[in-house]
Amino acid sequence: MDRILIEGGTVLTMTGRADVFADGVVLVEDGRIAYAGPREGAPAAPEARRIDAAGKIVMPGIVNTHCHAGTTLIRGYGDDLRLMEWLETRVWPAEAKMTAEDVYWGTALAAYEMLSGGITTFLDMYFPADPVARAIQDTGIRGIVARGIIAVGGPSEALSRLEESREAFHRWNGKAGGRITFMVGPHAPYTCPPDTLLACAELADELGIGIHIHLSETAGEVEEARRQWGKTPIRHVYDLGLMKGRRVVAAHCVHADDDDIAILAETGTGVCHCPVSNLKLASGRTPVSKMRRRGVAVGFGTDGASSENMLHILGSEMRIGAIQAKELEGDPALFTSYDALSMATIEAARVLGMEAEIGSLEPGKRADIILIDTERPHLTPNHDIFALVAYSALPSDVAMTMVDGRIVYENGQLTQADGKEILARVREAAARVVQA
Amino acid sequence: MDRILIEGGTVLTMTGRADVFADGVVLVEDGRIAYAGPREGAPAAPEARRIDAAGKIVMPGIVNTHCHAGTTLIRGYGDDLRLMEWLETRVWPAEAKMTAEDVYWGTALAAYEMLSGGITTFLDMYFPADPVARAIQDTGIRGIVARGIIAVGGPSEALSRLEESREAFHRWNGKAGGRITFMVGPHAPYTCPPDTLLACAELADELGIGIHIHLSETAGEVEEARRQWGKTPIRHVYDLGLMKGRRVVAAHCVHADDDDIAILAETGTGVCHCPVSNLKLASGRTPVSKMRRRGVAVGFGTDGASSENMLHILGSEMRIGAIQAKELEGDPALFTSYDALSMATIEAARVLGMEAEIGSLEPGKRADIILIDTERPHLTPNHDIFALVAYSALPSDVAMTMVDGRIVYENGQLTQADGKEILARVREAAARVVQA
Ligand SMILES: [Zn+2]
Ligand SMILES: [Zn+2]
Repeated sequence: MDRILIEGGTVLTMTGRADVFADGVVLVEDGRIAYAGPREGAPAAPEARRIDAAGKIVMPGIVNTHCHAGTTLIRGYGDDLRLMEWLETRVWPAEAKMTAEDVYWGTALAAYEMLSGGITTFLDMYFPADPVARAIQDTGIRGIVARGIIAVGGPSEALSRLEESREAFHRWNGKAGGRITFMVGPHAPYTCPPDTLLACAELADELGIGIHIHLSETAGEVEEARRQWGKTPIRHVYDLGLMKGRRVVAAHCVHADDDDIAILAETGTGVCHCPVSNLKLASGRTPVSKMRRRGVAVGFGTDGASSENMLHILGSEMRIGAIQAKELEGDPALFTSYDALSMATIEAARVLGMEAEIGSLEPGKRADIILIDTERPHLTPNHDIFALVAYSALPSDVAMTMVDGRIVYENGQLTQADGKEILARVREAAARVVQA
Repeated sequence: MDRILIEGGTVLTMTGRADVFADGVVLVEDGRIAYAGPREGAPAAPEARRIDAAGKIVMPGIVNTHCHAGTTLIRGYGDDLRLMEWLETRVWPAEAKMTAEDVYWGTALAAYEMLSGGITTFLDMYFPADPVARAIQDTGIRGIVARGIIAVGGPSEALSRLEESREAFHRWNGKAGGRITFMVGPHAPYTCPPDTLLACAELADELGIGIHIHLSETAGEVEEARRQWGKTPIRHVYDLGLMKGRRVVAAHCVHADDDDIAILAETGTGVCHCPVSNLKLASGRTPVSKMRRRGVAVGFGTDGASSENMLHILGSEMRIGAIQAKELEGDPALFTSYDALSMATIEAARVLGMEAEIGSLEPGKRADIILIDTERPHLTPNHDIFALVAYSALPSDVAMTMVDGRIVYENGQLTQADGKEILARVREAAARVVQA
């Protein structure tokens, strides 16, 4: 049996605000957590490999509920343009030139970046599915692949993409020790007509997986949905039956009204809150606290690097999302640092339906663990450990990232892939896809 | 003559959006910039010390227009409390226990943190003035000391603080090669009655320096001013004559109305925009773009670590301020990455009235220069160098920080002070000041 003992750090299990264990212990056995808590009561594990976590915080890996990893290739390409101009003159022409190999390297870069900032699981919507799965396999991160499905080119376009999703599922699902899983990925109601959405639901049921979709990101989208269907995008998708009896993970929901929020709560639909992307694209401010008070699970998501510009939640969404929620409610006490940490870990796992496997340090769960080095000026002093992580920590404070009990990032380096090669390949591909 | 040649990096002089010099050169002579631009045309400097900046961005040091450095001691102490509860149960009791020595170490920690993230100049409002000046001297940063003046205890309280400001000015102004300068620091109109504000103006004129003050931070403050004086805090201070014929640097101005903005523009009053603090304390959102369109100089400020939690502008105010400005105007094109960089450098220097000395890389200016290492996953690829710095860079990407031509931070370490000692002293002081 492979045993690892992480000892001497401050352990945050994310099972409750009181569960802070200075000089705590985490025991990992064969990729799963066997124990997490105080030193007293920890099982003796004389033969285990030792990791000294003194001066460090030990916590669950961060979960990124919404990403388009391959867009790292066009990070910073056409920022500060208005949405349609950006899509038409930058994003779509570049994407048309991307090969599957380019998407592989773009996703590998995203995984490198995410692991360097403590993200151990991400839900991705991009295309094609094959190189995304391959990059997850090779870098050591955990990923859910949702092949993006758009049917603006007619029903046959949707059919071929559904078929590609099915094939990728059968080729990759459960591979890499279970690190690779799938969802069906209809892009949005405005790019997928009802028959495509229903076909996606059928495929999800056939494969026994969930659905990932963008809903109510912009005011314009809601307006157009009201014009076309006489209802909001969320109500539209609900009335089509998509949210009944299967897991739906909905990105954004910025403009969800009270009726929409009731639907999300009733159906257990998880929400991916991407505050940086929503601010940068001037999409609006999500009523996060209202959703959570009504029982909707909400996790942080980065969205793609083409709109967010960095795929870090620590020091980014966790921080910005928290202070924005305070300002939006006009009350600094209504959203706490613990709320922010929850939305980056256990609540994000709940959004994905993976709370039995990841999101907290509890016996039986996957050993997705990060160490945060507090020997930094901006992390001194320590009056409140949750405030320290939520408001003061930077991605660069992550000293070690472990997935399934394997160290995949340490001392600034990936251990499973060649970081320097990834940077070089991405630079080459990025230069090519933006050429006229 | 001491000469340093920084070569091979991408030089951003911040003299214009077009001034980007790949394989650029910066020549430093005796602490000032002698040349900054393309390699062609650079003076030969065979005897100069060489700094290889290949793979790095070379840009002006970042300017923090508003800070309470000593509050690093209470970073994260009572976050998520409402303002008055936080002040009464946490901030004021802790501050009452702080010795001058504590403030020295707290300010040294702030300087360490700021230098590590590329901030080379800060305007500080705290007390007492002496340890603040001493910490500036010892760490190598550039600082403007505004001794905080509050007169809620009556006129004699204000008088003794004015006297302390005067004495500190005569003891320290221009010391450390000119790195230490002063402003008079009346805290706010609601803590300084008119006679105290006028006494501050008199002292500013006597010493030939400017005034730093908080104005219109919260809606409640504006309401109270209208009740008490029948006008906004900005109009009140203007009518008292404070803004006539002397430099005023106004922190926040979140709730400035059109008339207020006209006053700021007319008087050349600089505004310190602290978007993180304003969000976290739920104070509101500053109409930054409107102010700038009307000719008001606006620079980023962190505010204190007790409300902002990190004293970094890169990856923090620069990023959050930019995306918030986009969302506030409902248009992602109205505030650009170049605007964000300007507000962190040359425009911030203008706020402080120091644009002849710092804020851009131009011959004759002080050699306050930083290097940003782009060999990072989140800084790859490079489609737009300004977007890269404004939206993707982290404080930890700063590889080197130079003030007055002297390297004061490099390879994660301060060169002029002992970073480890600072962390240890702050931990000791922080534990003591929060004891019951
Ligand atoms: Zn998205
Ligand atoms: Zn302040």
